[in-house]
Amino acid sequence: MKQWENNVRAVTPYVPGEQPKQQGLIKLNTNENPYPPSPSVQQALGQMDAHSFRLYPDPEASQLTGAIADRYGVSERQVFVGVGSDDVLSLAFLTFFNGKKPILFPEITYSFYRVWATVYQIPFRCVPLDEQLHIRASDYVSAAGTVGGIVFPNPNAPTGAALSLADVEEIVRANRDVVVIVDEAYIDFGAKSALPLVETYDNLLVVQTFSKSRSMAGVRIGYAIGDERLIAYLKSVKESVNSYTMNMPSIVLGVAALEDERYFQETCAEIIRTRELVGQKLASMGFRFPQSQANFLFVTHPDYNAKELFLALRENNIYVRYFDQPGLRDYLRITIGTPEQMGQLIAFLEEYAARDGGGQRV
Amino acid sequence: MKQWENNVRAVTPYVPGEQPKQQGLIKLNTNENPYPPSPSVQQALGQMDAHSFRLYPDPEASQLTGAIADRYGVSERQVFVGVGSDDVLSLAFLTFFNGKKPILFPEITYSFYRVWATVYQIPFRCVPLDEQLHIRASDYVSAAGTVGGIVFPNPNAPTGAALSLADVEEIVRANRDVVVIVDEAYIDFGAKSALPLVETYDNLLVVQTFSKSRSMAGVRIGYAIGDERLIAYLKSVKESVNSYTMNMPSIVLGVAALEDERYFQETCAEIIRTRELVGQKLASMGFRFPQSQANFLFVTHPDYNAKELFLALRENNIYVRYFDQPGLRDYLRITIGTPEQMGQLIAFLEEYAARDGGGQRV
Repeated sequence: MKQWENNVRAVTPYVPGEQPKQQGLIKLNTNENPYPPSPSVQQALGQMDAHSFRLYPDPEASQLTGAIADRYGVSERQVFVGVGSDDVLSLAFLTFFNGKKPILFPEITYSFYRVWATVYQIPFRCVPLDEQLHIRASDYVSAAGTVGGIVFPNPNAPTGAALSLADVEEIVRANRDVVVIVDEAYIDFGAKSALPLVETYDNLLVVQTFSKSRSMAGVRIGYAIGDERLIAYLKSVKESVNSYTMNMPSIVLGVAALEDERYFQETCAEIIRTRELVGQKLASMGFRFPQSQANFLFVTHPDYNAKELFLALRENNIYVRYFDQPGLRDYLRITIGTPEQMGQLIAFLEEYAARDGGGQRV
Repeated sequence: MKQWENNVRAVTPYVPGEQPKQQGLIKLNTNENPYPPSPSVQQALGQMDAHSFRLYPDPEASQLTGAIADRYGVSERQVFVGVGSDDVLSLAFLTFFNGKKPILFPEITYSFYRVWATVYQIPFRCVPLDEQLHIRASDYVSAAGTVGGIVFPNPNAPTGAALSLADVEEIVRANRDVVVIVDEAYIDFGAKSALPLVETYDNLLVVQTFSKSRSMAGVRIGYAIGDERLIAYLKSVKESVNSYTMNMPSIVLGVAALEDERYFQETCAEIIRTRELVGQKLASMGFRFPQSQANFLFVTHPDYNAKELFLALRENNIYVRYFDQPGLRDYLRITIGTPEQMGQLIAFLEEYAARDGGGQRV
């Protein structure tokens, strides 16, 4: 070991889902949208002038924050944008979770929370889910006064299960002394957003993303909406890290995506419809899963070894997500693709069930 | 004050130069390149397909790191990319400056260093420049053993003065126990890069950017080159903050910019030529400045109040940078624009000198 390594920060990085580079596979492993972005995005791309790139972008990305504010009926000063919701969440951890008491998040949840807490040296405590893999709001209510902050996704990942708006409000109301972050990456697929609560609770930060419901994972746009004071703090910390995070293409393309509300509504509805049909089919094949309000299903099967099924799918160019971690080992997280892709998945699973080895009890 | 504000991280954000939105002004305040990016960038823009945006980008941005590695004759594992060099530097601070001893940087330098040290709670010590506003390498050599790391720009900002490669090597060699970051944002305008030293010194991290010499400030691309081990640590911390920092447009446009070496060389040469001519002219008008190896001049004039001149320029739609800080108050930082823009600047300064109030001694 070199001497300079003594000063290196110890981390255990988040491991994202594979991004295989070969073509022609069915990619149901990172919760991407199977539909392209709105045609308005391609149009904006065609009108972009590279000459403008010589200048720095607007550090406030006002065009984009303005468009988000308009879409959600809040003021521009209640909106913060970042390089995907991971950037927004990471900065929110750095900004708001700077106390001595542990922050709370679910034991089974988006695994980046633990990573951010580690890298920023934030004490944390994980709260188990109930036996149906649901977040129990009462756990977060009764912890009030003992915590430095709270963060959870709604719907939760990788389970897809959602909390009711009343439950979310109870958590936020009980914990007025700390910031509560509701990570709504998957909110547009059926759950109720906490956005209407931001006018009442200045300790509530709602985080959303263009990566899922707006089919823009490749452009990296996330945002937070909350009380003006929360947003001002977030901006100050962001401006202490990188003045210009949103590049010109992301600002222009993000605005273009927001212009096409109808496309957004239609593609979300289509994914929800597909999810319900696939859910029925999988249930009829013996799979079990929490009711999902997201663009994925978190499934287990009493007869199958999840890792084996994961590998068998992969061998057939169907990529789903397997988490080799305690509590998650019996499950696969399957992104909702197009009806055609899901048909191919179901066909494979039917064939798998009929295999000599496939239906074998483990 | 709300209770939740107790947990908010205290910061003093960096203040970037103004990005005025009106058209038709002469913008010499944020060291942008007066020339557009290579035509290869517009071409790449025209070929981009918005359909691809529904997927996450390659978290490693391999196309771009590969192209940078090829250009600079290093291996891809020696290259790290980020959202502008600010992102790269910020992550490098977080990664490598995690010791208890103070890090060193010049007292007059890129003011973001102080901001990152503060936000990441890194102890730091500032080293004065010499009387000619030059970094004294010996100060950093003699500090060896007492520091947690070193960072300086070469050429320095906002002075434009460069260290020789021998001086840089001496600093790096004397401080093998810590990471030394050389911030080469302006290196392509005449100074000698420390890149040849990375093969010898595994504690040297060289940071460069597409924002200045490649006219791509609006796309946000920066990179670091160093020993594979340094880069691996940087990647681990980056993956603990945000898996996907480089969006698809930035990867594609960055690769396109690198393809046009000739354009890059020509535009850099043109800026250097303009700088030398403007320097001669300003010197003949009584302005004084350190010899600049950057795309800006850091000027003072014995007869003028710098702030007054700054405001007079601004009133005439010529934006330069004024830092209202101790040690910098008598100076203006003027970005090198096109010959036409600089001609307008000179014309204004001649008129200013002839004014009743302009030539007034202060």
